Amino acid sequence: MFTMDSRLNNDTVKIASWPLCEVLLMNDAQYPWLILVPRVSEVTELFQLDKSQREQLDAESTILGKSLMGLFGGDKLNVAALGNVVSQLHIHHIVRYQTDPAWPAPVWGKLPGVPYTAQELELVIPQLAAITDYSW
Amino acid sequence: MFTMDSRLNNDTVKIASWPLCEVLLMNDAQYPWLILVPRVSEVTELFQLDKSQREQLDAESTILGKSLMGLFGGDKLNVAALGNVVSQLHIHHIVRYQTDPAWPAPVWGKLPGVPYTAQELELVIPQLAAITDYSW
Repeated sequence: MFTMDSRLNNDTVKIASWPLCEVLLMNDAQYPWLILVPRVSEVTELFQLDKSQREQLDAESTILGKSLMGLFGGDKLNVAALGNVVSQLHIHHIVRYQTDPAWPAPVWGKLPGVPYTAQELELVIPQLAAITDYSW
Repeated sequence: MFTMDSRLNNDTVKIASWPLCEVLLMNDAQYPWLILVPRVSEVTELFQLDKSQREQLDAESTILGKSLMGLFGGDKLNVAALGNVVSQLHIHHIVRYQTDPAWPAPVWGKLPGVPYTAQELELVIPQLAAITDYSW
């Protein structure tokens, strides 16, 4: 029985449900930052997924990364499964710009988060809904 | 024609050549930290690999991650493709402990690197050679 970690829930806005993963927007307006969370209970490491789950995660991560870079035109995509704070397996996809406030450092713990305003969310959520409306 | 980035070359010790990737040990004794570098030229993003390359990378990353956690018994594995400084695609695999000097922060840019001594390398290289001696 899969339950989303409460911290992931609180820090994000749900964008889509894909075959394996929930697609979440991190509520930090400083970077386009999406998170894939496989709906698999008790998994903390990528290597704990079975082969078919890893294949599906690869497909979902590839489509998400390509679409995000297409939409936001960043300089680099950061993809990472860390989990030192929230151990439930989740994979960050962060569009980075040479002009963003943390560049070239990784974003985690670098700067306090800046939540989206309601107006900003009204703009970005439909854009993300459009690129994640994928026929699997 | 694949050429290893000079910074990756300088900061690491080569452990093995796998079917897709070079397996490198980051010369920082603070964490067991291995890097996979696909021998594919001009690739900076995971999604630029084709499907068969991504499948092989998944296999190599899974085996490396599982073996590292088996050998070093860490609390968490960090897996990440960042590339903000060195854009050539490379995937970090870092064994983390709740007692390591950067925990729970990510390791990048947190603390100056601590190169292995010659004696330490003589111990760790054969251990890593053993777990990466895999029949593909």
